[in-house]
Amino acid sequence: MSEPKPGSKQPLREPEAGPTALDLPAGALSPEMRGYLDKCAEKIGFVPNVLAAYAHDDAKLSAFAAFYNGLMLAPSGLTKLEREMIAVVVSAANRCFYCVTAHGAAVRQLSGDPVLGDTLGVNWRAARLAPRHVAMLAFAEKVALASSSIAEVDRQALRDEGFTDVDVWDVAAVASFFAMSNRLASATDMRPNAEYHVMAR
Amino acid sequence: MSEPKPGSKQPLREPEAGPTALDLPAGALSPEMRGYLDKCAEKIGFVPNVLAAYAHDDAKLSAFAAFYNGLMLAPSGLTKLEREMIAVVVSAANRCFYCVTAHGAAVRQLSGDPVLGDTLGVNWRAARLAPRHVAMLAFAEKVALASSSIAEVDRQALRDEGFTDVDVWDVAAVASFFAMSNRLASATDMRPNAEYHVMAR
Amino acid sequence: MSEPKPGSKQPLREPEAGPTALDLPAGALSPEMRGYLDKCAEKIGFVPNVLAAYAHDDAKLSAFAAFYNGLMLAPSGLTKLEREMIAVVVSAANRCFYCVTAHGAAVRQLSGDPVLGDTLGVNWRAARLAPRHVAMLAFAEKVALASSSIAEVDRQALRDEGFTDVDVWDVAAVASFFAMSNRLASATDMRPNAEYHVMAR
Amino acid sequence: MSEPKPGSKQPLREPEAGPTALDLPAGALSPEMRGYLDKCAEKIGFVPNVLAAYAHDDAKLSAFAAFYNGLMLAPSGLTKLEREMIAVVVSAANRCFYCVTAHGAAVRQLSGDPVLGDTLGVNWRAARLAPRHVAMLAFAEKVALASSSIAEVDRQALRDEGFTDVDVWDVAAVASFFAMSNRLASATDMRPNAEYHVMAR
Amino acid sequence: MSEPKPGSKQPLREPEAGPTALDLPAGALSPEMRGYLDKCAEKIGFVPNVLAAYAHDDAKLSAFAAFYNGLMLAPSGLTKLEREMIAVVVSAANRCFYCVTAHGAAVRQLSGDPVLGDTLGVNWRAARLAPRHVAMLAFAEKVALASSSIAEVDRQALRDEGFTDVDVWDVAAVASFFAMSNRLASATDMRPNAEYHVMAR
Amino acid sequence: MSEPKPGSKQPLREPEAGPTALDLPAGALSPEMRGYLDKCAEKIGFVPNVLAAYAHDDAKLSAFAAFYNGLMLAPSGLTKLEREMIAVVVSAANRCFYCVTAHGAAVRQLSGDPVLGDTLGVNWRAARLAPRHVAMLAFAEKVALASSSIAEVDRQALRDEGFTDVDVWDVAAVASFFAMSNRLASATDMRPNAEYHVMAR
Repeated sequence: MSEPKPGSKQPLREPEAGPTALDLPAGALSPEMRGYLDKCAEKIGFVPNVLAAYAHDDAKLSAFAAFYNGLMLAPSGLTKLEREMIAVVVSAANRCFYCVTAHGAAVRQLSGDPVLGDTLGVNWRAARLAPRHVAMLAFAEKVALASSSIAEVDRQALRDEGFTDVDVWDVAAVASFFAMSNRLASATDMRPNAEYHVMAR
Repeated sequence: MSEPKPGSKQPLREPEAGPTALDLPAGALSPEMRGYLDKCAEKIGFVPNVLAAYAHDDAKLSAFAAFYNGLMLAPSGLTKLEREMIAVVVSAANRCFYCVTAHGAAVRQLSGDPVLGDTLGVNWRAARLAPRHVAMLAFAEKVALASSSIAEVDRQALRDEGFTDVDVWDVAAVASFFAMSNRLASATDMRPNAEYHVMAR
Repeated sequence: MSEPKPGSKQPLREPEAGPTALDLPAGALSPEMRGYLDKCAEKIGFVPNVLAAYAHDDAKLSAFAAFYNGLMLAPSGLTKLEREMIAVVVSAANRCFYCVTAHGAAVRQLSGDPVLGDTLGVNWRAARLAPRHVAMLAFAEKVALASSSIAEVDRQALRDEGFTDVDVWDVAAVASFFAMSNRLASATDMRPNAEYHVMAR
Repeated sequence: MSEPKPGSKQPLREPEAGPTALDLPAGALSPEMRGYLDKCAEKIGFVPNVLAAYAHDDAKLSAFAAFYNGLMLAPSGLTKLEREMIAVVVSAANRCFYCVTAHGAAVRQLSGDPVLGDTLGVNWRAARLAPRHVAMLAFAEKVALASSSIAEVDRQALRDEGFTDVDVWDVAAVASFFAMSNRLASATDMRPNAEYHVMAR
Repeated sequence: MSEPKPGSKQPLREPEAGPTALDLPAGALSPEMRGYLDKCAEKIGFVPNVLAAYAHDDAKLSAFAAFYNGLMLAPSGLTKLEREMIAVVVSAANRCFYCVTAHGAAVRQLSGDPVLGDTLGVNWRAARLAPRHVAMLAFAEKVALASSSIAEVDRQALRDEGFTDVDVWDVAAVASFFAMSNRLASATDMRPNAEYHVMAR
Repeated sequence: MSEPKPGSKQPLREPEAGPTALDLPAGALSPEMRGYLDKCAEKIGFVPNVLAAYAHDDAKLSAFAAFYNGLMLAPSGLTKLEREMIAVVVSAANRCFYCVTAHGAAVRQLSGDPVLGDTLGVNWRAARLAPRHVAMLAFAEKVALASSSIAEVDRQALRDEGFTDVDVWDVAAVASFFAMSNRLASATDMRPNAEYHVMAR
């Protein structure tokens, strides 16, 4: 086999055709949801494919958006960056390409530290974080990989780093949410928008 | 050690104190959410502890209820019983006591077959189901346990049993939802209401 | 797909045809073994399918019964209930439907606490047990799932809760026995007698 | 650290003190069991430590011996060598030093092929066996490592190689027995008699 | 906790101090190895930390470089890009931050397709590759994660896609090499040079 | 099936045809490498099949030999026996028949303790070793099985037993090397030379 020239840009990958591998007929969107997608496009620059996929069903799109925004954007004892760090760590544990890509971009953007996003997307143990974040991510990873063996000692380890019981709920809820999103994305072969790859580098 | 008398009803377990192991201060509920919980209590006979736990935050309770009801109760190519079967199988794979208990009761109720609920709560392979349900539960279990290796062949296996692409989304969405619920329940030590154990036996 | 009516009792499962999926020709039973099975039927109300399956070979039935009874019913530092608790926890770890069902019923019966049986059949960590039983079940689960990494520290943890060395042998022996029974039941698709599902509820 | 001379025979290991790590008080043996152990010593040249360990309880020793002998020595569609091959393969999967050693010696002895015993004790796939034995050992290994996912297709694969349903029971029963023995041996740190290491080399 | 401003660039990570977490005294380098490191710095722009780490021992650095270059750069039936693709896929399976970073950069550079590098660094199944590369990476991942169960059927799957037996050796050798490098990097906390993160984006 | 006579030496295994399952055309060897193989044959009594396999490519054979010898034979804070102990323990974890056999023989030879080699080839925890060796082998096994979760505490455990940082590198490097060799051997079905089985027994 002759070596192709570096940088010859002959794609090894098939082009993507749609936000997922499923053929989901376009549903009729309510004015509220059309407005929501328009606002996303304006603010982020594109409609994230997770929303484009959910858009086959107006009610489900609406419920997903409310649930997601309440979890990731509403006031919380966790900063938005911390919630995105959990998102990336859980997604890396589940090897979900869509979510590592989309939320890796968010970590780069919120932290101003592109290497942090890349590190969490492979192995958070390589990031030399402060004890608060080590505790938070160790708990999130256990939620992702071994939830049935979580015990009081695990919750106490978060309290020992200053997390309140409501914060513990939030760490668990964010980690659990991405256990869901990762699986839905992998099960439907959801494809990250191309824009994510270059955001905030 | 002397043998206690069978049926002496000396509890080996500590009593439960609240819906989870977390101390979540009661939030102020909106009239809508108060009404929703009242309606649950009236219809089911009690407020499920997952709702009691979410009730520390009105907005999160509201979003969770909308998201859950859209997934599990709205019209779908999957029957309500099928969605509950997926719930139990994923919860068994994750060894989540809260969800196996609550949704095992739902399977007993919807199917009129108490043994079906018990079987799915341990190992669905022991249930000798029809090919449609074998395909559905095998896919759901792969979503639960090995989502990163799902490929087109797995989605095709559902189509071969008559599932549409929207149905495939729904199987994936329900299985993924319980990947989340199981983890949030286990991470917070959520306790099933006592009523579930005796429902529809 | 139209929704079947709840409680319509149309079975989703194929009926069972025999105690296992294997076609084991009936062997000639000795008077002793005929008497033993008769006594079981009288005392329990039915012949457990594990015995019906072993009955294809008189000598093996006899040896199995002696081995089982010595382990589970003879005097020991462990109560009968404790031995049944170990049985259920190991069977849950191995997701063996036959054994979770049969020994879950025994836990309900011996403890007078139906919820205890249900909890151990999914995840003993949800049961809030006393330290003696936490130590016992943690050791039993390690025997079930990671026996090659058991070390002196694990045995010592049992001694620290008051177990003698003979008791440690018994915990190990009961946990190991169900590692065997679970596998034989799963490998032959052994079906629990219907009576177990309703016993002691 | 200076290099010790090869062959200097300074032991790196602590000497063994008894058949297991447990302090099991010697029980009173019945004449039958004393005779059985004497016969073992005469025939094999020593009392296997598994029997020495069980000897703390006469009834348990007796039941274990009957159960073991019925399984491994009584007439069966499987040769004695085949049963020992299963024993070694399961024991290797469980990394049980006692059983790999004792039954590896049996395979060497019964087969007259020392390399066969060594191969099965590490990885049977390296042994280039006939299809009958590949099917038998693949089934046994699945019993050992993934019993909850055994399905009809697995049993059929044995029938396709000429195993009867009674033979399938026997393969399952032998594999399951060593799932038990391996765990009891590992959990109690049972030590193989020194004689096994040199038998039939 | 108040939300830090996005892009405020306050690092969450401790700065790195050296190529690994080990304190490896600088060894005396031979003129050949000094020349080799100088040539690397000139060609790549920096001395990769894996070489900086090996430089504590001149002979080991020399042997490693020869071994690595023979494997990854010498003529082969696999293109250099294909060898780098294997490197990234194995490193992702092992969650090795050093190797995903360094070889992800190489895939970006050799393919001119930054997204390909990012995809392989999380989950190659998301990349929609041609059958030759699916076969190659499936084999490489099995080498990484389940080498003891590789059988003739796995090698044949590569031959069926046109790989010669020497090519099969090379796929196995490259995948195995990164099984080594990943472990040495993770075990010593080896840190990727900062330059890798921005190369060929 | 009639029982074959013990010791009848009818092989159950197909004979081996070459050092691996691959058809690797003989390459032209340089005088240096011909001399190296001759020296091996003279010193060990045969050419190890790993070298026979590498001999299809003179440059790769040469690089492998240099890399191997630098790691296993050059001066180090670890004795040659300790390095061979690591080799066997990692190879047992990976169930690599070639490497357990070849390096098990080396442990027997260097230690003068045949049982030590057999024990490490199944489960080092059964060997009752001194704390230095327990720490060394626990670290090596973690490198083999869970490298992505190694943290500073693991390296410190070696330092606490007197290992220097260069020694830690060497433990990691030897364990990682066999992670490679095991995989290359299993992936190519490499067969141990018959002589290994009887060496130093």
